[in-house]
Amino acid sequence: MMKLYGYFRSGAAYRVRIALNLKGIKVEQISRHLRNGEQRDPAYLKINPQGLVPALVLEDGTVLTQSLAIMDWLEETQPNPPLLPKDPIRRAKVRAFAQSIACDTHPVQNLRVLQRVKGLGQDDTAWARAINLEGLTAANELIKGEKGPFCFGAEPTLADICLIPQVANARRFKADISGLTRLQEAIKACEAHKAFQDAEPEKQPDAE
Amino acid sequence: MMKLYGYFRSGAAYRVRIALNLKGIKVEQISRHLRNGEQRDPAYLKINPQGLVPALVLEDGTVLTQSLAIMDWLEETQPNPPLLPKDPIRRAKVRAFAQSIACDTHPVQNLRVLQRVKGLGQDDTAWARAINLEGLTAANELIKGEKGPFCFGAEPTLADICLIPQVANARRFKADISGLTRLQEAIKACEAHKAFQDAEPEKQPDAE
Repeated sequence: MMKLYGYFRSGAAYRVRIALNLKGIKVEQISRHLRNGEQRDPAYLKINPQGLVPALVLEDGTVLTQSLAIMDWLEETQPNPPLLPKDPIRRAKVRAFAQSIACDTHPVQNLRVLQRVKGLGQDDTAWARAINLEGLTAANELIKGEKGPFCFGAEPTLADICLIPQVANARRFKADISGLTRLQEAIKACEAHKAFQDAEPEKQPDAE
Repeated sequence: MMKLYGYFRSGAAYRVRIALNLKGIKVEQISRHLRNGEQRDPAYLKINPQGLVPALVLEDGTVLTQSLAIMDWLEETQPNPPLLPKDPIRRAKVRAFAQSIACDTHPVQNLRVLQRVKGLGQDDTAWARAINLEGLTAANELIKGEKGPFCFGAEPTLADICLIPQVANARRFKADISGLTRLQEAIKACEAHKAFQDAEPEKQPDAE
């Protein structure tokens, strides 16, 4: 069985949990407690020198890191059900949405950056709230013209997988995203889907 | 002919220029001057609601955004020469390296974030220097065991495409990356390659 190093509250690990659930793949979950700095333990740095979660350890010991790279690997090796449409243009649209969150939003408000903001004597919660609001407002624009109920149609894709963990952060930092109607429709569809429900932070073994 | 909206100094646009050169694809370049805020013009926001460069406009008017999504589309539709290895595990390794830069490094030190840091009365150059040093140090670890001269072997990949624009930033912010020996080997190989040379910021029509 594969091992997933994660943390209940890590948005990037949350994405991989959803993807694994959608594909029906069971893994052993191992927690690295981010607030206690466990991801910086020398033993864990041997697994992932970036000192970040998630890391997926395959049965032969190969370590894969970076949530998007892990999900591309999953998609390439276990294509059903698909996380991406078949048409190259549609794939690019789904990926661009996912990256608007995974590149332009999530990393700018993760624990590492917020600790840096706090270390400068600044309000890290206000920073995180602004980044979440800006990022999700742009994400809503990207799917305004798309049919629902999910971000890109009738089935969940990589876009929804990246959206939901970011929404958890937006709520935690009290960013008001209630007016983003197309996004709200997708959130509702995801929250009614078992693969998303089972991946929720509060339901993980290491939840506090 | 396709149109690439970019900016000579944008690291994300620089990536796409390298990828297009490697694939031998010519495009019309259109500049959006980031420091003058041209990417926030209402006309440009219709093209990319995220207000970021790059955006690639296909011949039929379809707009693709996000550099990694654009490069995945290029790879899927014009696979030769490849930007990724064939083996799924190797692909995941190259992608993880690329994302360690495109997700965890670049967006945390881009103009938008530095303006926010400066707006808080903080030293944006010190911020950018620290982020570049941290990100490229981790990137060096990821390829320590890989044969050169490029990041992942004898030919350039998506990893090198993401590396070189980040190195341009590291130099601009005076991050000392001289001790990252495996990374330096890859940088040298890229700097000797015409596809990388022709994509350099200073050689673009909008360079200042």
